Amino acid sequence: MPELRQEPITNNWVIIATERSKRPSDFPVQQEKRKGGKCPFCEGNEGKTPPEIVSYREGGTKADTPGWWVRVVPNLFPALSKTGNGVGNGGLDGESVDLFVTKPGIGDHEVLVESPDHNSSLDTHTPKQVIEIFYMWRDRYQALLNEKSIKYIQIFKNEGAIAGASLEHPHSQLIATPLIPPVVSEELNGAQEYYQQQGKCIYCEMIKHEKEDSRRIVADNQDFLAFCPFASRFPFETWIIPKEHQAGFDLINDSQLENMGAIVQEVTRRINGSLNGPPYNMVLHSAPVGNSDAAQYHWHLEILPRLTIVAGFEWGTGIIINPTPPESAAIYLRETNTDNSQEKERTLWQQVH
Amino acid sequence: MPELRQEPITNNWVIIATERSKRPSDFPVQQEKRKGGKCPFCEGNEGKTPPEIVSYREGGTKADTPGWWVRVVPNLFPALSKTGNGVGNGGLDGESVDLFVTKPGIGDHEVLVESPDHNSSLDTHTPKQVIEIFYMWRDRYQALLNEKSIKYIQIFKNEGAIAGASLEHPHSQLIATPLIPPVVSEELNGAQEYYQQQGKCIYCEMIKHEKEDSRRIVADNQDFLAFCPFASRFPFETWIIPKEHQAGFDLINDSQLENMGAIVQEVTRRINGSLNGPPYNMVLHSAPVGNSDAAQYHWHLEILPRLTIVAGFEWGTGIIINPTPPESAAIYLRETNTDNSQEKERTLWQQVH
Repeated sequence: MPELRQEPITNNWVIIATERSKRPSDFPVQQEKRKGGKCPFCEGNEGKTPPEIVSYREGGTKADTPGWWVRVVPNLFPALSKTGNGVGNGGLDGESVDLFVTKPGIGDHEVLVESPDHNSSLDTHTPKQVIEIFYMWRDRYQALLNEKSIKYIQIFKNEGAIAGASLEHPHSQLIATPLIPPVVSEELNGAQEYYQQQGKCIYCEMIKHEKEDSRRIVADNQDFLAFCPFASRFPFETWIIPKEHQAGFDLINDSQLENMGAIVQEVTRRINGSLNGPPYNMVLHSAPVGNSDAAQYHWHLEILPRLTIVAGFEWGTGIIINPTPPESAAIYLRETNTDNSQEKERTLWQQVH
Repeated sequence: MPELRQEPITNNWVIIATERSKRPSDFPVQQEKRKGGKCPFCEGNEGKTPPEIVSYREGGTKADTPGWWVRVVPNLFPALSKTGNGVGNGGLDGESVDLFVTKPGIGDHEVLVESPDHNSSLDTHTPKQVIEIFYMWRDRYQALLNEKSIKYIQIFKNEGAIAGASLEHPHSQLIATPLIPPVVSEELNGAQEYYQQQGKCIYCEMIKHEKEDSRRIVADNQDFLAFCPFASRFPFETWIIPKEHQAGFDLINDSQLENMGAIVQEVTRRINGSLNGPPYNMVLHSAPVGNSDAAQYHWHLEILPRLTIVAGFEWGTGIIINPTPPESAAIYLRETNTDNSQEKERTLWQQVH
């Protein structure tokens, strides 16, 4: 029968819908038609973006010319603006009754172009290139920490049109917000409650438990653990978490960054190998600005394959239906043989059921 | 510049992204290819579903034969099961550590087939048929109120594959849960807080304000108001709310049901006329079981067109980016001329901007 599972940090619920149990081949991922060719993020087209904020580039080359391998530009259509003269309770339409509160949309919105090559991706980059991308994530994260009126820094990556990517050239994004977002507050409150009761970081405890249990582990290296969380909302959802306690992503050191690059590439290869290159969101969860050394919080990266649809039931209740138990998902991801994934899959399904 | 808006009940935030401002023609809705033909919900195929729970049918016809106009059957792949021998903390995999809490997936999952005709829909049914559908919603809602261990009853409708409909035959669904879902708790807590401070139902206050303001109103009849909420998460999001204070949907009377049918049909016609038949979720929000007469809560129906993608930023923060201000959406919906919507739209866009 179906099982309700409670997410230990936020106390939200998911339904693991065993009546609908799904293996990888039940999610027929249609390869999106790629436009290919030259886009504004391609090498040689630097003039088609706003001037770059920063880039990693060969010595002697100039800003906004070729020679870079990771390049950051402002988003042309920012969700939040760097500057503005808006005032709260009124910007858009002058409304200011008690019931309706507004805030000017001040913040920042950057695009991190992950490669000069339009057709590369996290699983096909050189290992060195993946590490360079995360060096840039840290650089931008640290830089934004010092911007006035920024309370939270959200770095994320949308892969595939179904997951929200409007440009196919590999890129991630950073949106900095002038308030602590509700999902972050929810996690902080849950972690704080656990810390007060148990005197421990709940994420550190989760790492310990997942390692002992081992059924949900996807990958493991010196500094990081990758696992399908107990209360996975999405089929094949995978979290990547530093083994050492760190609340803010800005605290990651160089050697950890290199192991982060390695495990992210391994996990994306396992996901792509199992599921034929599915759309996914990759979402950094980190402490709010000024809380990077918090004892109760622990930054991590969530990879959310978008194989199911969040529909009426989910919007009404907040309870997400997931047809694939994380214990089954982890077996597929661990055992994925990218050379011959279909044959492998049949055998595995027999083992699981 | 963009504007952050706070939802008055839950205190969640949305970004009205004016830099990305979108009118109806910016959302090219591709008509989904309809399979048509006979499906398990079609008249004459009653044997292809589990035995019916209840139906409205012509006198003298038997259950599970033709002659019905609204028919309710159990979902073949229930998200929650009516019965089961599962026990908490263990059903699926015997896990029972403190960190990980489970609950058996007991509840109910029904399909309400809205018409014998495969190709009909809310906007093309006769007005009488739409009203009959909502009579059935009330009947099933009232019936489930008496089931043991049910704490919440979620009725919803997914229209279009992108919004999660796996069968195109018009139908809505009911999932009854053994706990009060987080979205519902959030609304109840917010409404309770307002009630304690102001001694009034926040939804009643919202109705009053929207009527006075009038910019966001989409439709209006004797018993119901339809408006685009101030903190709309989705372009063209529309709420339909009874003007009389009612916490539980089970309390709706016959004459109100008829006006509910009328306004829902009007709003779906306006949405389809403006947006070329977009996918949408229609979601009932009602008081939990046992709280139908609560002074602080107010049931309503939310229609959520699925024209944008909830992506990495939204999953990380809970802040949803909406490129269409509700004030603009309401103008389009109010003024929609379904005979000549493109011409109308151009004129309107000039008025708005």
